[in-house]
Amino acid sequence: MTDIVFNHATVRERADMLTFLRLCSERGLETVSIWGDEIAKVGETDALSVLNDLGMTVSGYNRVGPLAADALDRAEAELERAARFKADHVFLFTGGLRENEKDLSCARRRIEDLVGSVLERARNIGVKLAIEPLHPMLTGDRTVISSLSHANSLCEALGPGIGVVVDVYHCWWDERLAAEIEGAGSAGRLFGFHVNDWLIPTRHLLTDRGMMGDGIIDLRGIHSMMRRAGFEGAVEVEIFSTDWWSREPAEVLDIALDRCRCLFNRE
Amino acid sequence: MTDIVFNHATVRERADMLTFLRLCSERGLETVSIWGDEIAKVGETDALSVLNDLGMTVSGYNRVGPLAADALDRAEAELERAARFKADHVFLFTGGLRENEKDLSCARRRIEDLVGSVLERARNIGVKLAIEPLHPMLTGDRTVISSLSHANSLCEALGPGIGVVVDVYHCWWDERLAAEIEGAGSAGRLFGFHVNDWLIPTRHLLTDRGMMGDGIIDLRGIHSMMRRAGFEGAVEVEIFSTDWWSREPAEVLDIALDRCRCLFNRE
Repeated sequence: MTDIVFNHATVRERADMLTFLRLCSERGLETVSIWGDEIAKVGETDALSVLNDLGMTVSGYNRVGPLAADALDRAEAELERAARFKADHVFLFTGGLRENEKDLSCARRRIEDLVGSVLERARNIGVKLAIEPLHPMLTGDRTVISSLSHANSLCEALGPGIGVVVDVYHCWWDERLAAEIEGAGSAGRLFGFHVNDWLIPTRHLLTDRGMMGDGIIDLRGIHSMMRRAGFEGAVEVEIFSTDWWSREPAEVLDIALDRCRCLFNRE
Repeated sequence: MTDIVFNHATVRERADMLTFLRLCSERGLETVSIWGDEIAKVGETDALSVLNDLGMTVSGYNRVGPLAADALDRAEAELERAARFKADHVFLFTGGLRENEKDLSCARRRIEDLVGSVLERARNIGVKLAIEPLHPMLTGDRTVISSLSHANSLCEALGPGIGVVVDVYHCWWDERLAAEIEGAGSAGRLFGFHVNDWLIPTRHLLTDRGMMGDGIIDLRGIHSMMRRAGFEGAVEVEIFSTDWWSREPAEVLDIALDRCRCLFNRE
């Protein structure tokens, strides 16, 4: 059986964090991925106590970033909160270009330096950082790291304590995907695997991701690449979608669980 | 002075091909990029005669494809028409996945074989083929070639008579861009350079491209990469945009000319 983890973002519009934790626990799930802003909404004490009462653990903590010049103090607070939730890894959200900035290479060098600074703090606090390259259509606006190759090179340069999360939505189109997953696996840097689907047509750059099976991504094929590269972690469902956000959270979780079991447990 | 070429797509909604040719000629432009379907609308005889009367030449001819199994006969007809218009190069539009197809690697191998077959016909007819890698957000739907690296490798494998067109919209995010432009230049494979801009926010995957200067692409920087790689051709304006399509074609051309002169003639 492949373990399944839900990212709270999948049902965040209609289920607060406490509801989300209970819905996951009722379905026999033991691990979740969570968001700092959603913790703040329900209060950290309540969030931690429900998490512990249900005996659940945290996979990914969202997030550190965007990485502006003043981001380091805020980053430290997020890293410390992630540590209190015993998260397996913390997502780095690089953010995009500055206002009126057009030199992408220069922005990349600046952000890479900032990632290095955040990593030092993360090592001191004892949490791992995860880079999730975002789809090229989000370059400049929300990220400057648009490929797994770039993320892998950066991790290689920075050393221990940082790895990658492969989200099929962001990486599926890349002709280098199999090679880069293999490379990340050999280096022990595959921290997570996120699933959803690419819809045709896609009507919005941020909020029109599909439920697994409704789009054109070869989810089984990419999952096999992950397994061959030595990844033994869970499949994490993360769907940003106004359509799915409008539906009953319990129903969304049940449909996603069915799809995951059908797609990932036959192998 | 950098030569400027307009692609008819930029004003196609309100200017038929004959109007487009006259508008370009009135502005002192001597070269255009054209579309087979727009030729068909006004009739090939009239299109050719206005083109010749105005003393204009054709840069890019759109297009051969999508490359389905039955595409070769249609491809041959397009290549022959492109030859009658003495086009410098003909665009290959690969198309995406078949219905229900999910194996992108397999689709890529199939399309690469078809490109090889089209190339044989193009060589016989005496026209050059151009691959324009499309943005990864169009993968599966409209293309299977999503990076300049992939296009370059394919050209390398297929030999003479095929090259690449670099459209900033599709390639600007790629951390390999400078290296791949340099590689294509060394191999004599840089057939064209298309400009427009990436808007924040982008509201539609196909029809929300920006006017040069309105977005976040480092147009001067990428133009310099092209020049350093030995490209001496024109800057071609190609904007797919419901906003710009709704405006007066003459006004669109004038604004684009101003922007191009400001951006590309200071170097």
